[in-house]
Amino acid sequence: MKQSAISSQRSAPPGVEAELEERRRLVEDALQRAFPPESAWPETIHRAVRYSLLAGGKRIRPLLALASGEAVGGRRDEVMPLACAVEMIHTYSLIHDDLPAMDNDDYRRGQLTNHKVFGEAMAILAGDGLLTLAFRLVADNFAAGGASAAALREVLVDVADGAGTHGMVGGQVVDIESEGKTVSPATLDYIHLHKTAALIRTSMRVGAVIAGATPAQVRIFTTAGTSLGLAFQIVDDILDVESTSEQLGKTAGKDQAQQKATYPAIHGLEASRTRARDLIAAAERSLAELGPRAEPLRALARFIFERKA
Amino acid sequence: MKQSAISSQRSAPPGVEAELEERRRLVEDALQRAFPPESAWPETIHRAVRYSLLAGGKRIRPLLALASGEAVGGRRDEVMPLACAVEMIHTYSLIHDDLPAMDNDDYRRGQLTNHKVFGEAMAILAGDGLLTLAFRLVADNFAAGGASAAALREVLVDVADGAGTHGMVGGQVVDIESEGKTVSPATLDYIHLHKTAALIRTSMRVGAVIAGATPAQVRIFTTAGTSLGLAFQIVDDILDVESTSEQLGKTAGKDQAQQKATYPAIHGLEASRTRARDLIAAAERSLAELGPRAEPLRALARFIFERKA
Repeated sequence: MKQSAISSQRSAPPGVEAELEERRRLVEDALQRAFPPESAWPETIHRAVRYSLLAGGKRIRPLLALASGEAVGGRRDEVMPLACAVEMIHTYSLIHDDLPAMDNDDYRRGQLTNHKVFGEAMAILAGDGLLTLAFRLVADNFAAGGASAAALREVLVDVADGAGTHGMVGGQVVDIESEGKTVSPATLDYIHLHKTAALIRTSMRVGAVIAGATPAQVRIFTTAGTSLGLAFQIVDDILDVESTSEQLGKTAGKDQAQQKATYPAIHGLEASRTRARDLIAAAERSLAELGPRAEPLRALARFIFERKA
Repeated sequence: MKQSAISSQRSAPPGVEAELEERRRLVEDALQRAFPPESAWPETIHRAVRYSLLAGGKRIRPLLALASGEAVGGRRDEVMPLACAVEMIHTYSLIHDDLPAMDNDDYRRGQLTNHKVFGEAMAILAGDGLLTLAFRLVADNFAAGGASAAALREVLVDVADGAGTHGMVGGQVVDIESEGKTVSPATLDYIHLHKTAALIRTSMRVGAVIAGATPAQVRIFTTAGTSLGLAFQIVDDILDVESTSEQLGKTAGKDQAQQKATYPAIHGLEASRTRARDLIAAAERSLAELGPRAEPLRALARFIFERKA
């Protein structure tokens, strides 16, 4: 087995990797079904959305949602629509972030970005459509499951806060405004905690809430989700420096070229690795309180640290 | 009193206009409170959102939502968050539609468009943030009102369908793809029914549903909302031909310049006026089944026909 690009630890045992791959396949199947087929009218928008939504990707957020539900004894089919919804929100954010007016990227998940294939207007609308459908999926699923209005409210507000101007969108705003400027470590943390960690924390929390987590359990997911989300973005920053475009499926070295605020740029590579390792360890400790059912979730935490793309 | 620009009928009596104005003021107050203040961090995005959301406008959708709730005996404060949510969705769609990659407009509601003031990246994010917050507002309000999960589901799915790829976004897709082409009357109806009528129908339906409308009543709003929504867009097409930019608060004559598919272009001005008048009359007849409580809603229908901007 290959060593991880950023650590000297051994990768997860083969059984865990196979299990992750199996879950990823289930997520792919569910995403296939969650969005209208390419033949649905108007065809262009549904082709554009499916092009980006079904382009692969690590599916970290849905896997975290599923494993979080599982960690508190929930059924996979209860959590799956929410898992799809957070991936749709993540995908919409990638489509919009890649636009020329934003990060202006040509490649994503190993293929041309949405606007390079479908044009800017369609890419904007594809993102809008995905975000809208994500909320529909959350709401539609709930009535079927018979959950209470209070639980539906909690999940929807969490998704909106994780994705909105106090979450992911807010992080993206400060990220864009910080380009080419010297940012403080506090601003860097704001960007990473909002642009990336907010939706990752939400993915874990809503997966647990819909599965019936107690308030005390939800607090564990809040803490662990924040650590994992921040670690995920720090590892992303490190990989942008250390990997090739082929490995990443998107343009490598882009952060430095765009003078983005990143962990390696501000703290150096070694301190960034240490910080990511510490955050993962902290998340694993929090999750250990949930007992053996949280083992798949802890395996995901290790995957986040050891991933190579 | 001035005669309507598109009809020889007299305008609504002064009492009705004053009442509409009073309701509009209540909507403005609620919108002011519904979105984070300009001082909320990150400030730029909240300034950008408030710039467009609080730029005035006719507030047709929230007024229709409020009057629809009232028509089935609902309380105004129950419906107001939904009324704000549909206006947020409408405003996000204007911000994105005005972008250079879409309709490329410089003026809207009598002021520079969002991207002309805040830049394209921020305008994209402002639209994304508004759409996200609209769903948050719907969900958050419900728990407070004690409505059932089934009602919350119905409202959210309706909002998502009215706004998404089978609603407003779908109409915008076909609108953009039809620019410069000869479109059939059927395609023109598709565009208008989806780009505009879908969210107007949703506004009426969800206002009624949250106020406890029966399924039979909801069907009345579905029929009347479709007619009113289509009439609204036909009148918009007519005004684009007949008004000045000052009257509209946006660039007049834009449809013809961009070779947009419009009613006057395909059916001629006179037939367009007749069609709008017939649709309004049909909507009024449907709404009459709801009795005297629907009178403010019928006044709004007449306003849609007689408006001058």
